[in-house]
Amino acid sequence: MRPTVDYLMMISDDTIAAIATAPGIGGIGVIRISGADAAVVLRRLFEPRRPENLHPDGSFPSHRLCYGTVRDRQGAVLDEVMAVFMRAPHTYTREDVAEIQCHGSYLVLQAILAEILAAGARAAQPGEFTKRAFLAGRIDLTRAEAVIDLLQAQSMGGVELAVGQLRGELYERIAVIRDALVEVLVSVELALDFPDDETDILVADHLLGQLEEQIEQPLQFLLALADQGRVIREGVKAVIAGRPNVGKSSLLNQLLREERALVTELPGTTRDTIEELISVHGIPVHLVDTAGIRDHEDAVEELGIERARQKMREADLVLFVVDASQGLSAIDRSLYTSLDDRKRIVILNKMDKIDIADEGADENLLQELSGFFGAVPQVRTAANKGVGIAQLRETLYQAIIGEQEEMSERISCAPNLRHKMILEKTLAACSQVRETLLAGAPADLLAVDLRAALDHLAEIVGLTTPDDVLDVLFSRFCLGK
Amino acid sequence: MRPTVDYLMMISDDTIAAIATAPGIGGIGVIRISGADAAVVLRRLFEPRRPENLHPDGSFPSHRLCYGTVRDRQGAVLDEVMAVFMRAPHTYTREDVAEIQCHGSYLVLQAILAEILAAGARAAQPGEFTKRAFLAGRIDLTRAEAVIDLLQAQSMGGVELAVGQLRGELYERIAVIRDALVEVLVSVELALDFPDDETDILVADHLLGQLEEQIEQPLQFLLALADQGRVIREGVKAVIAGRPNVGKSSLLNQLLREERALVTELPGTTRDTIEELISVHGIPVHLVDTAGIRDHEDAVEELGIERARQKMREADLVLFVVDASQGLSAIDRSLYTSLDDRKRIVILNKMDKIDIADEGADENLLQELSGFFGAVPQVRTAANKGVGIAQLRETLYQAIIGEQEEMSERISCAPNLRHKMILEKTLAACSQVRETLLAGAPADLLAVDLRAALDHLAEIVGLTTPDDVLDVLFSRFCLGK
Repeated sequence: MRPTVDYLMMISDDTIAAIATAPGIGGIGVIRISGADAAVVLRRLFEPRRPENLHPDGSFPSHRLCYGTVRDRQGAVLDEVMAVFMRAPHTYTREDVAEIQCHGSYLVLQAILAEILAAGARAAQPGEFTKRAFLAGRIDLTRAEAVIDLLQAQSMGGVELAVGQLRGELYERIAVIRDALVEVLVSVELALDFPDDETDILVADHLLGQLEEQIEQPLQFLLALADQGRVIREGVKAVIAGRPNVGKSSLLNQLLREERALVTELPGTTRDTIEELISVHGIPVHLVDTAGIRDHEDAVEELGIERARQKMREADLVLFVVDASQGLSAIDRSLYTSLDDRKRIVILNKMDKIDIADEGADENLLQELSGFFGAVPQVRTAANKGVGIAQLRETLYQAIIGEQEEMSERISCAPNLRHKMILEKTLAACSQVRETLLAGAPADLLAVDLRAALDHLAEIVGLTTPDDVLDVLFSRFCLGK
Repeated sequence: MRPTVDYLMMISDDTIAAIATAPGIGGIGVIRISGADAAVVLRRLFEPRRPENLHPDGSFPSHRLCYGTVRDRQGAVLDEVMAVFMRAPHTYTREDVAEIQCHGSYLVLQAILAEILAAGARAAQPGEFTKRAFLAGRIDLTRAEAVIDLLQAQSMGGVELAVGQLRGELYERIAVIRDALVEVLVSVELALDFPDDETDILVADHLLGQLEEQIEQPLQFLLALADQGRVIREGVKAVIAGRPNVGKSSLLNQLLREERALVTELPGTTRDTIEELISVHGIPVHLVDTAGIRDHEDAVEELGIERARQKMREADLVLFVVDASQGLSAIDRSLYTSLDDRKRIVILNKMDKIDIADEGADENLLQELSGFFGAVPQVRTAANKGVGIAQLRETLYQAIIGEQEEMSERISCAPNLRHKMILEKTLAACSQVRETLLAGAPADLLAVDLRAALDHLAEIVGLTTPDDVLDVLFSRFCLGK
């Protein structure tokens, strides 16, 4: 798996270094060095506590963690560290790699990095280690992309997709389709080489069947996975809407509380006052509470309502809250009408204020409410008491995956937007092949179309990917990866 | 170097685990496991890519980094990782230690940690790894404290102090004093064993000399270092004061800009609107700009001035700014008077508005200004143009270290507040020894006093430190250290 020749020309043989752990205070910080001089640089800074752990010639045994000290150019000890040298090619970049594990103070990490740079390494660009792994042919482009996806995943669903891709699941599927395309191309080229037998070999029906079953259908399937993947990776935006005082904020707080009970809260995440991230069965849901608008409502209620309408228009899904104990007001109806055909869940809140046993007015009120919303999914809650929240999460999950039946079984691979666009181009090229074939055009025209389809596919795994696309892709990485 | 027996009783032999890198997104995240089951736990989750790198019996070679995958209990791959097993006693805790280096996503780290806990480890308390290193006798208490200091250091000066302490510099100094105390005690105990020779051996003059030179003076010296250490570790609070529109904010911005040119800005640090941290030759300086008060000044100028006075009273050092082109106003004089005897630097700002060549009014104005401030350190600046800022930093450094002559040579060791209090108690016990000696009291009384002094000193290194002190100390750690 080799990248384009142009891009290979850009491989530099210098040695790069970067802090690889997250900024902030931690017990351990790691600095990574990669390139031909990795051992030389390490040797210049690092003094092992037990020199007998080195080879007799003073070189580092590969993959062995050594304890020792890092000194600056003036000879002052910067920290006590663990260091490891890893000889090419069994490394992340397939180059010589060295790593220094020091105390996780950003000042210490920066001081050591400064010494590494003074010792001859260059500060790595974001993503440069992974880029080198790609350029060296250790990983294809889908695996490189999986590294970013993994680091940026917002939920365990996203993590699973990224790990699957990291392990080559997408690459394998693409490879199978490429093999099928190559097989068709070989048949066609055979026809070119032996023009007399052309009609015999080019049994159009057979090729069409191959094209559909082994190429077009798998491509279509991947495209369907792409849409599911987008939901799992990026999640959906759900707006909690409803007139003032129906309990929107209580509902949001309850969903967040369940969230915090389910997964330990990530440190360092700042919570937007109006948008919160929760995970529903591994799918990120960005919850927007239109209650943030309330401040303005006292003054100009219409303005508040208008803002809520705006938020609802931007949502993938609306959680429409009503006060079940009050029935529907004119504002409820007006807001609900503005949902148009937007996907929604209706939440009949404040159920605790309804006396269910009473078969009189309250019972009628509820029936009337349920009737009004008809077939729309409904959940009954008493948000201030935490009642019905688990059911709401279930309904939320069903609403998100509702249109994607396959998703009830968790997918392990999904093309991203870049892949999706290429898959569509490949499918278009396949249509061209089909047309050419049906038009009875000569084999050499067919071969051109098939090669176009192959070129497109190769762009996914990085064989024919334009350099500017690669640059944009790797610039999305964090430093040190 | 062994801790108290009581504390030894508390050593548990269970296996602990924690995420050791800073939270947030990084290229690499590290999870650390320590305890007798570290290898068992690692074996349960981790599958090496090349089993031939393991020993024939399937056990891990010590200190060798292995590439492989971590799986959850359902067999799903959580990540591709590097793992290392380190056999006791050559480890951080002197127990068996395992580390897993995975992708630096907090979701991945948490998922792997969850599997480690399910495999039989317990979540570590903050500081528990270092506590185990201390309890196992690998490091004394001053070295354990140095780990926290290192992680929390705000400037390179603080880092250097912490690294020196980590390398045992404070421990060694204490050990030398302890040895001297023991020597004195031995002389006294010899006198006890051979009461007839008591007067011969107990030459009071000799013992007094030993006490002063080898014990009291070194203790005094350490106490002086403690004060310098406080400044280096915690820094000083400097307030930029002056009436409105003399250029306080420009000055602050210039100092911050120089700062950012000197050291790469730490990511993740949030800048308080009124307090900023800069480093002056390795010493943290917390700069407070009273310009933040200005908003109020239009409405109630007196209130603004009063707030500025309040800030100045809280400062270690005041940077008093005047508009040199305007001379001194009544407000300038009033504010300046309220400094009382506070340490200060006067900044004659807006020098660019003065025509120095003009030997007329402007020159007189400057002379009058300089005369008014007399012997107070003065710096001439044009803050909006960045002129004089380097000189200001120099003057700032001199003002901070002015009273501490030894600090012009960077110290490599400094007792903290806990040590300082114990050093004072030890000195007090030495005074008691001196009094007893001068009073001609019998040797057994002397021995009691000497043992008290020894017990105090032992508390610094952790030999006689009360358990509750240890608990508080280790609870200051971050997780994973």
